[in-house]
Amino acid sequence: MGYRYPSYETLKTFCHDVFRTFGFTEEETGIISEVLLRADLYGIESHGMQRMVRYHKGIENGLIKVDAKPQTVFETPVTAVIDGREGMGQLIGHAAMRKAIEKAKTNGVGIVSVRNSNHFGIAGYYAEMASREGLIGFACTNSEAIMVPTYARLAMLGSNPIACAVPADPVPFLFDASTTVVTRGKLEIYNKAAKPLPEGWALNAAGEPSDSAPEVLGNIVRKEGGGIMPLGGSTEQLGSHKGYGYGMICEIFSSILSLGATSNYCMTGGKGRICHGFAAINPAFFGDPEEIKKHFSAYLEELRNAPKAEGASRIYTHGEKERESVAGKLRDGIPVNENTLAEMAALCRYLNMDFSRYFPDFEAPEASHAAVY
Amino acid sequence: MGYRYPSYETLKTFCHDVFRTFGFTEEETGIISEVLLRADLYGIESHGMQRMVRYHKGIENGLIKVDAKPQTVFETPVTAVIDGREGMGQLIGHAAMRKAIEKAKTNGVGIVSVRNSNHFGIAGYYAEMASREGLIGFACTNSEAIMVPTYARLAMLGSNPIACAVPADPVPFLFDASTTVVTRGKLEIYNKAAKPLPEGWALNAAGEPSDSAPEVLGNIVRKEGGGIMPLGGSTEQLGSHKGYGYGMICEIFSSILSLGATSNYCMTGGKGRICHGFAAINPAFFGDPEEIKKHFSAYLEELRNAPKAEGASRIYTHGEKERESVAGKLRDGIPVNENTLAEMAALCRYLNMDFSRYFPDFEAPEASHAAVY
Repeated sequence: MGYRYPSYETLKTFCHDVFRTFGFTEEETGIISEVLLRADLYGIESHGMQRMVRYHKGIENGLIKVDAKPQTVFETPVTAVIDGREGMGQLIGHAAMRKAIEKAKTNGVGIVSVRNSNHFGIAGYYAEMASREGLIGFACTNSEAIMVPTYARLAMLGSNPIACAVPADPVPFLFDASTTVVTRGKLEIYNKAAKPLPEGWALNAAGEPSDSAPEVLGNIVRKEGGGIMPLGGSTEQLGSHKGYGYGMICEIFSSILSLGATSNYCMTGGKGRICHGFAAINPAFFGDPEEIKKHFSAYLEELRNAPKAEGASRIYTHGEKERESVAGKLRDGIPVNENTLAEMAALCRYLNMDFSRYFPDFEAPEASHAAVY
Repeated sequence: MGYRYPSYETLKTFCHDVFRTFGFTEEETGIISEVLLRADLYGIESHGMQRMVRYHKGIENGLIKVDAKPQTVFETPVTAVIDGREGMGQLIGHAAMRKAIEKAKTNGVGIVSVRNSNHFGIAGYYAEMASREGLIGFACTNSEAIMVPTYARLAMLGSNPIACAVPADPVPFLFDASTTVVTRGKLEIYNKAAKPLPEGWALNAAGEPSDSAPEVLGNIVRKEGGGIMPLGGSTEQLGSHKGYGYGMICEIFSSILSLGATSNYCMTGGKGRICHGFAAINPAFFGDPEEIKKHFSAYLEELRNAPKAEGASRIYTHGEKERESVAGKLRDGIPVNENTLAEMAALCRYLNMDFSRYFPDFEAPEASHAAVY
């Protein structure tokens, strides 16, 4: 299971042609491709090309409706509720965040809650839409249940990431993290490598700690119990109730305010039912935005310059790693797993596209692993 | 170091007389007493009567100005910035949250950022001010630096609690947690009990894990390095960068938007400089608030009824423990440490109040421990 390193441009062309062929408009295709490739550029492999198969299967199975247009079902000058009508999550997320941004620009704050969507990629993308326009941005999403609440044995919340982006110089602040201790993608990497899971990550079907990736992943797929611990582990000693609480805050802005499906009902009955939450806050409604940005940038600089722990060479502020990853990947190419390339080849066969036109040096085998959708 | 169990009414009368004698008005005294006693009723001993000595010393030293009135320095229909002018944190917090609530009732959202305040007690109190009026409430505060950022050896953020309260039946949702793995109060309890700290809580002056409560607390007081780990520990494996990130979100709403002091400057130069953030969001600006409340209540019920982990008897939703604690303490009295009672006796001597009028059965010794302010 090696890696290839196609260029950003190659993958962009590939994405463009795929989503155009699926029937999305030129503008829609641009948005979807940008969200997916941003994940790969940031080094979040799980949410980039690796997910093409999921969108492929989602569209093929009717889970994702190509022609659906999101509908605003409730609106005020500072809030809105959008029904995604089972469309492509990236397009729904983009439209919802644009609405939040416009409200924040005019009225100071915009909060938009979304129901009946599908997976939207990385939450950070949407938060950054706001920060690139000088606003504070928040984005969150629920998802298929995978987080086991403190003292439970069944997953009842999703990985429920919360992202926050804030303008700063020279590196904007970008926080984007699941409220579980790790994401499912991490378990899959340990599974492929046949390594035991670190302590404090996952639970078996009885709700007890487990270091077996295949056992935990199998149970999740079969909905037999267990899953991933909240940030803070499975007991209150290290703050399990806190990660569980942040997961709940994600549900409140996504599934609760929109009257949508909570994570335990997502991806059931042949529907995605995913819910998102977005917020934009305008610093100009608190004072001079340049002064606020300068104040924040100075603090970030102090954090980076603080004394390091014994053996540590650097303190990161949130967003630095992503920025450095982009520079490296634009230079050296984007790492794509050969299994993922095989899935992309299968997608080309489905769409009658010529895979070798994009990846002439890669002889695509049949996909060699059992992908779980 | 035993406990006594005075009644809620006794402590309320005591608080009333103390803060009136300090010079606060009847209304101000009511607010301060309510915030402090709510902590004790919720079982958060560290933030109740145990803190009287801190307010006593703060007022005595001029850190807390009894006559200060918070001043609104920037305001729009949905936002405000308040300068606390070094007043009593509870009064500043109460005024700021009232402003956020009024804005949310009229305009859907209210966000208020506060600088130059002092410790305000439990964040949850303010979040609940909103939820008791049918709104979603958020409150956060920075504080003296105690959280060591991932890979650092010096504390640069406070315990930075974030609280969120949301209307629900039969038990409202109340999340109130530090973004550190534990609070300093927990370390003090281990210190008094001469027990080693659990793994994953604290760091020594070199930024390495330490199980020595006296060493860690001593270093914190002398600002020699070390402190408490973020939620998620000290490495990225269990999500240290996530707790650190939530601590940053707390700073953004408290110290950044208000142009106030970040945690690393709080409690320096004889000033508190504490900053708070408050938000209220009106569910009626997203749809029918009763329907939203019903939807949320149903999810909370599903969580409580989910299958339990092996050996666990109950899954809590956030706020249940606090509610049950109140019932127990109103019935059985509020546990007050004898050291705390000794501090309260010293406070009476300072104010020329008759301690024995409130606690006739307790022979107050001189305070037997070295309190750290």
